[in-house]
Amino acid sequence: MNHFTFHNPVKVVFGRGSIAELPRLIPSDANVMVLYGGGSIRRNGVYDQVAGALEGLDWGEFGGIAPNPRYDTCIKAAAMASAEGASFLLAVGGGSVLDAAKFVAVAALYPPGRDPWEIMLTVNQVERAVPLGCVMTLPATGSEMNGNAVVTRDSTREKLFFKSEKVYPRFSILDPSVTFSLPPRQTANGVIDAFVHVMEQYLTYPVNAPLQDRQAEAILQTLLEEGPKCLARPDDYDARANVMWCATNALNGLLGCGVPGDFASHRIGHELTALYELDHARTLAITFPAVTKHLRAQKLGKLVQYAERVWGVTGGDDDAKADAAIAKTEAFFHSLGVGTRLTDHGIPPEAIAKVADRLEARGQKLSEQVPLTRADVEAILTLAAE
Amino acid sequence: MNHFTFHNPVKVVFGRGSIAELPRLIPSDANVMVLYGGGSIRRNGVYDQVAGALEGLDWGEFGGIAPNPRYDTCIKAAAMASAEGASFLLAVGGGSVLDAAKFVAVAALYPPGRDPWEIMLTVNQVERAVPLGCVMTLPATGSEMNGNAVVTRDSTREKLFFKSEKVYPRFSILDPSVTFSLPPRQTANGVIDAFVHVMEQYLTYPVNAPLQDRQAEAILQTLLEEGPKCLARPDDYDARANVMWCATNALNGLLGCGVPGDFASHRIGHELTALYELDHARTLAITFPAVTKHLRAQKLGKLVQYAERVWGVTGGDDDAKADAAIAKTEAFFHSLGVGTRLTDHGIPPEAIAKVADRLEARGQKLSEQVPLTRADVEAILTLAAE
Repeated sequence: MNHFTFHNPVKVVFGRGSIAELPRLIPSDANVMVLYGGGSIRRNGVYDQVAGALEGLDWGEFGGIAPNPRYDTCIKAAAMASAEGASFLLAVGGGSVLDAAKFVAVAALYPPGRDPWEIMLTVNQVERAVPLGCVMTLPATGSEMNGNAVVTRDSTREKLFFKSEKVYPRFSILDPSVTFSLPPRQTANGVIDAFVHVMEQYLTYPVNAPLQDRQAEAILQTLLEEGPKCLARPDDYDARANVMWCATNALNGLLGCGVPGDFASHRIGHELTALYELDHARTLAITFPAVTKHLRAQKLGKLVQYAERVWGVTGGDDDAKADAAIAKTEAFFHSLGVGTRLTDHGIPPEAIAKVADRLEARGQKLSEQVPLTRADVEAILTLAAE
Repeated sequence: MNHFTFHNPVKVVFGRGSIAELPRLIPSDANVMVLYGGGSIRRNGVYDQVAGALEGLDWGEFGGIAPNPRYDTCIKAAAMASAEGASFLLAVGGGSVLDAAKFVAVAALYPPGRDPWEIMLTVNQVERAVPLGCVMTLPATGSEMNGNAVVTRDSTREKLFFKSEKVYPRFSILDPSVTFSLPPRQTANGVIDAFVHVMEQYLTYPVNAPLQDRQAEAILQTLLEEGPKCLARPDDYDARANVMWCATNALNGLLGCGVPGDFASHRIGHELTALYELDHARTLAITFPAVTKHLRAQKLGKLVQYAERVWGVTGGDDDAKADAAIAKTEAFFHSLGVGTRLTDHGIPPEAIAKVADRLEARGQKLSEQVPLTRADVEAILTLAAE
């Protein structure tokens, strides 16, 4: 096992009706700014629940945060937060709204004359942030229990992330019943996003960390069982609760303790979203199988373990087991209604060279052992085009 | 899944050499009081490592904290902490030292004229505590990542616990290599303690929480594999690391999220320790199998799952699987050199009535569904005497 530091102070309040706990969680003297998205929370009753719970507190709101939240929107929200002296941000929505709130929390207190986008280009240089909390309505990104955020900048077509302990939510309210009204597309996306988060921390190379391996397999197996139930019966409380808790556990730092990670699928996927506005999870359904095929030799040990333990594959040699595991993973994504090829999502062939160019220019290390080259990225996306 | 709140802000710093991180973790202006036990840290080099890391800080020490830490010792340590104006407590040792430090942290700031023992008799009434951290040298209790502490009072022969967010360690340093020198008895005790912590949160009744079930099974399977390796080769770093991380994960609150718990084995075990000074883990090796046999019908669903998933039992009907699982659990404890009967540890037959009397007088609810009666406790201990 490798060395590690684990620290996650987020308070999770989980269960039906938990939005009513808000007054206990937000400081009573706070000046609250509620951030939300495109209006689904007005249709499904969450807005009214939040407004009811905040009664008597001093609060305002900023709506209209789009999926893949935009830098320009965040800057507007930050200006409003500064102008109104917001002392607490409450994100109500999915990972996009929460990620935006994390960026706003930093941008609202950023030194005048400097562009907060610089936090996306380095690591852990955030010095302060407005405290924030969230009501999570879409289990997927795990943002409700980590200090990560992804923001997109239109002017440069960049989708980048930052990470800081300063933007851990003080609390996250998870009420599975508010996810009953999610469209099937978002439900499926959430299951795939969580699944790939786990795989990126699990499917690397063995470092003798059997507990972390099994904690990862626990989430994968549960998503395989419970994800399809959410699509089949959207108001199945237990299935929704189980998927929601899986998504949170998939990226709260625990799985990554003492083991290597390989976030190449995410990095390549972010470029696809930045260029073609494709849903984040759908980019992962494309990139993850392709990365795995391309790095099959390097990942063979864990691929075989994954095949045996998660998919119950027992026949054949190691190569056959690895192939079966990849095929079954793709079939699972298909069963959720999500294609795994560029063409399934209307991404043109020229995307391959474009994404390779962009990642080469960014110069970030990809994969867990040998850094991926430009040729590797091209090869991966070519596999995704077949 | 039941409703829950999860909040665990402990920072874990894990790996060989991590004691050297102390200066980064303790406030540089702190007045530090180091608490430790009977001197094993002087023999195995941990004391010197800690002293070296604290060089330049203002620190003093309080040694001699015994296993099953005593109220009287804690009160002395608290008086010294108050007198010297300690602003940070550093526990260096196993769960006993850390539990003592937690009690001291509260007692040192307790209102004059009141007896801090009262925190053992109610829940969550702790208002303030001196901040504390730890260097954990014995993986077992999980105290390094929770707000629980157990203290024994000789004058009344009581072993009781309290729980408060105020005594979460600010950090816990876990260096598996410092456990190489543990005697086999303590290594075995640690594995059993962690194993039973998991079982008490797992072996109740199903509430459709498949992730939590699998997270529990992940720890159980890892302890079964890695525990014996630590006994066979005490300086096997990976095995020590895996057991250490299992022990921390066994009682950091995650397994208990949204599921019922049954801590009857611990409660009955504490009485045995209070009366006969038997090692905590050894009391659990006695009580856990007996509680499970007594409540077999109530726990049958989970017992069968445990048999199948953790022990690979496939043959026979449900009753046969349950019996096999209990027998295999006892055989595992025996394989670690720990007996599972009162007589194995020299506990006399009159213990049965004594413990039943004490628990009846304490009036605490035991077990997860139907509270155990005095007759139940007698029946359980009679099973442990057979």
